[in-house]
Amino acid sequence: MTYEFHPDKYYRMPTHFGPSLGPRQGLDGRRYANIETSKDVIIQAKFEADKSQLEKLLPPGFALRDFSIVTLTFCYITEIEWLAGRGYNTFDVSIPATYHGKEETVHGDFTLVMWENKADPIITGREDLGIAKVYCEIPEPQFTGNDVVCRASWDGCEFASLKLLDLKEIPASDLPESGASEGSLSYKYIPKTGVPGEADVEYATLLPDVWPNVKLDQAMAAQTAAIQFRKSTWEELPTLVHIVNALSELKLGKCVEAHVMRSHGSKDLSDLRRIK
Amino acid sequence: MTYEFHPDKYYRMPTHFGPSLGPRQGLDGRRYANIETSKDVIIQAKFEADKSQLEKLLPPGFALRDFSIVTLTFCYITEIEWLAGRGYNTFDVSIPATYHGKEETVHGDFTLVMWENKADPIITGREDLGIAKVYCEIPEPQFTGNDVVCRASWDGCEFASLKLLDLKEIPASDLPESGASEGSLSYKYIPKTGVPGEADVEYATLLPDVWPNVKLDQAMAAQTAAIQFRKSTWEELPTLVHIVNALSELKLGKCVEAHVMRSHGSKDLSDLRRIK
Amino acid sequence: MTYEFHPDKYYRMPTHFGPSLGPRQGLDGRRYANIETSKDVIIQAKFEADKSQLEKLLPPGFALRDFSIVTLTFCYITEIEWLAGRGYNTFDVSIPATYHGKEETVHGDFTLVMWENKADPIITGREDLGIAKVYCEIPEPQFTGNDVVCRASWDGCEFASLKLLDLKEIPASDLPESGASEGSLSYKYIPKTGVPGEADVEYATLLPDVWPNVKLDQAMAAQTAAIQFRKSTWEELPTLVHIVNALSELKLGKCVEAHVMRSHGSKDLSDLRRIK
Amino acid sequence: MTYEFHPDKYYRMPTHFGPSLGPRQGLDGRRYANIETSKDVIIQAKFEADKSQLEKLLPPGFALRDFSIVTLTFCYITEIEWLAGRGYNTFDVSIPATYHGKEETVHGDFTLVMWENKADPIITGREDLGIAKVYCEIPEPQFTGNDVVCRASWDGCEFASLKLLDLKEIPASDLPESGASEGSLSYKYIPKTGVPGEADVEYATLLPDVWPNVKLDQAMAAQTAAIQFRKSTWEELPTLVHIVNALSELKLGKCVEAHVMRSHGSKDLSDLRRIK
Repeated sequence: MTYEFHPDKYYRMPTHFGPSLGPRQGLDGRRYANIETSKDVIIQAKFEADKSQLEKLLPPGFALRDFSIVTLTFCYITEIEWLAGRGYNTFDVSIPATYHGKEETVHGDFTLVMWENKADPIITGREDLGIAKVYCEIPEPQFTGNDVVCRASWDGCEFASLKLLDLKEIPASDLPESGASEGSLSYKYIPKTGVPGEADVEYATLLPDVWPNVKLDQAMAAQTAAIQFRKSTWEELPTLVHIVNALSELKLGKCVEAHVMRSHGSKDLSDLRRIK
Repeated sequence: MTYEFHPDKYYRMPTHFGPSLGPRQGLDGRRYANIETSKDVIIQAKFEADKSQLEKLLPPGFALRDFSIVTLTFCYITEIEWLAGRGYNTFDVSIPATYHGKEETVHGDFTLVMWENKADPIITGREDLGIAKVYCEIPEPQFTGNDVVCRASWDGCEFASLKLLDLKEIPASDLPESGASEGSLSYKYIPKTGVPGEADVEYATLLPDVWPNVKLDQAMAAQTAAIQFRKSTWEELPTLVHIVNALSELKLGKCVEAHVMRSHGSKDLSDLRRIK
Repeated sequence: MTYEFHPDKYYRMPTHFGPSLGPRQGLDGRRYANIETSKDVIIQAKFEADKSQLEKLLPPGFALRDFSIVTLTFCYITEIEWLAGRGYNTFDVSIPATYHGKEETVHGDFTLVMWENKADPIITGREDLGIAKVYCEIPEPQFTGNDVVCRASWDGCEFASLKLLDLKEIPASDLPESGASEGSLSYKYIPKTGVPGEADVEYATLLPDVWPNVKLDQAMAAQTAAIQFRKSTWEELPTLVHIVNALSELKLGKCVEAHVMRSHGSKDLSDLRRIK
Repeated sequence: MTYEFHPDKYYRMPTHFGPSLGPRQGLDGRRYANIETSKDVIIQAKFEADKSQLEKLLPPGFALRDFSIVTLTFCYITEIEWLAGRGYNTFDVSIPATYHGKEETVHGDFTLVMWENKADPIITGREDLGIAKVYCEIPEPQFTGNDVVCRASWDGCEFASLKLLDLKEIPASDLPESGASEGSLSYKYIPKTGVPGEADVEYATLLPDVWPNVKLDQAMAAQTAAIQFRKSTWEELPTLVHIVNALSELKLGKCVEAHVMRSHGSKDLSDLRRIK
């Protein structure tokens, strides 16, 4: 008399009301094509970093790739199909890494943390995809003159800001190559209930760097950029202070590139997979 | 050169910055006593319901207990230790159920869904505890005269309201017994990445009904109560419509009890465990 | 030893910290050119309405112009100079009207009410300009397929939604003329402190329909549109219920036009003036 | 055929939908008794200050009273009748002052600025009462151990925090006297539309210090307190930077008293009046 799970359907807690609704499944199993949308404003900067500091942030099985840089990306997303046309914003920090699995070796960009300002994509991103998403407030970017400021706060306490200076429009062909990355790497970890130190789930995942729907609408290059992580207290950031302060302690060198890109088209990330 | 996990520490994504911060672990492994706080305003009503409708909401291994009622609980929590004195609000729907595990049989209250208005406790509640928490806005309760209204919305679209009428203060001893419940039951489910229909994690959990720190400060009984789940569209609630509409279709009978309770003291829920 | 007011500077409460900051005055008296920004998404629909109902909404000195229509406009504004690149959203209701002043007769569009989702422009709009701005939540527009939905709520209670259906891009030249309007009319009213029924300020204002900086970037026409004002209770909308319910009682006829326009460039509204 | 104003009714923009709804007038002219509510948590600290700095913040007609202190008050208000049981929070800064009117001399506390986190009371407070209310985010107070932290931010940028340390419950009789204040003084100023430097309204108001309904429920004294106004940039606080930076430049001495008070009962402030 209880319910049964449908095979081949995506589920998430609560499973009691039928298959879940999310990026990869709508009502009646509908899928989202993401051809013309979402619309994305991507504001990104890369900084030289200290190799030994970055290595300490890698989980077992991962190694830093040849170069030692940190990439900071704010993404302001609108017209998302699975949210019925709504949007949300993200802020993520990644470093180039290689994962040595049992069967595969994958070179990619390892997402250390991804903040998002909406709970729904955080939940699906963590549980379906294994991406280390957590919550913060991410107000819209502030374009003033030829500069832009991106900001992140939690409960009204600003902990990070990224500023790109002296933006100039460039042809798409002037954007740098993505550096032989096969995609975004994550480390899915779900704790075992009631047993500290043990995990129910623990494996690496890959989001392949294949985006057939994405069309670039505009590209701008900045003269330079500056990132600030504000050293914070536990009282200010009781769930994030260890993350923010570790990032604030990174010794960052010069900005090696900084861009603003506007694009449309996306994908449902159903190609994200566990690495063997 | 990568990091290692510390044994016996709680971890959650991102695991790269050390043990996680949350209800059961603070900086340097600190635990929270929850003796004098949190402070809780609990607004609860129970309604007769249709047995066959409720049974269809139970996952494998669960059965409805003797009586067929639905319990709706709004909880407004302040001064939470692990949030450095902040608070959040919850709204959950539960039904009396028995879980038949391989080794244990547990009689409790099965949480069908728990909405919360802050992402951080949602994440820890889902992954650490297996509670089916999802996000919505839950504004403060509206006390007007001797009535109170509790409301829940998502992106500005109100989908549920609970009204308690004609509240009168009562002695604590007049509160009804909790009905032989051993605690709150949940069904932890984490999907397998990239494989729809398959799960990484799938088991029942119990939060024992033992609350040594909780001191009741005030109890009020309502003459009656009314719950409304508003039938909604996918455009309005693209991640919740299947849940809200299933609840709106429940045929509810009379209100069997409705109370407001104010209390202080809590626990860190580290006694929540998997049922064998 | 007290401070003195600077002549020719804009002031607003609190006046104690020097000239105010706002749309028409920045630090050190700086003005904002608004040449390339703000960027605006305007979603507008016009409906036939009942003449006698509209006339009852006009203050002394105003009369309905020839035609009896209601215009509903949602505007989603970003990159606003005076907010250092931030934005906000508005929703206003207007009707065509003529104001007969002592010296002037002005034909325009009378703003019955303008909701905005940020307090700062509400304050300056009311006090500097005399526009009847009040607060509500206005989430981003939901574009799904060829439709778009605009919504307004207060404290999580949705009270209005506007849907435009079957949008198609059109050349700018196909947009209808603005109907011989000289601009937006408002009725500035500031109550006399401590004396109900009496006013400190009471006069009509005109925002001339002259927008030299505005460049249209895209125009779309909808096949039709639908507006809904939800009849609400005082408990739901204790500061707005009289407005929302009056609007919900308007008998609206067919949609006479409905458009989406994207534009950039604005002005500081310093040309808004009292009508003599 | 236009509408007419009812005598003796409170009005506010938009006046087109009948008498306004607010603290002093509900539907059908209903008044609010405020006998048992609102419920208020008041967190207040007073600091010695520099006389010459404070005098420069006083408008014409005002003079500093005998002593040179700054009072900072956070107030967290719930169960407000005119908001149908909702609440909001305030943060105000005041100094002791005397107003020399044409007919009256009034000794009181001059409100330099009052931040509130809800637009509706800001609008009525400014226009009906002449209080210098502006908007910011004011999260709930953080009680941790025997300390409490109050915070204020705007668009996610924290600009002020007040911390009270080592709180101990005290009898109501141990609370200090209010210092011969006749009430709260404000300076109502409404600009003349289209004419910078000129005012439509400009006069002093008094809120008499008479609160017959207020019952104190708890009083706590702090050992000491600390206030921080963070020096900010225009990009961070484009509408508030002149206020916040002026306050950050005040040279504050020792904390002369700091208290937490919980009370219930209020008034509708209809006794606030213009000073002759």
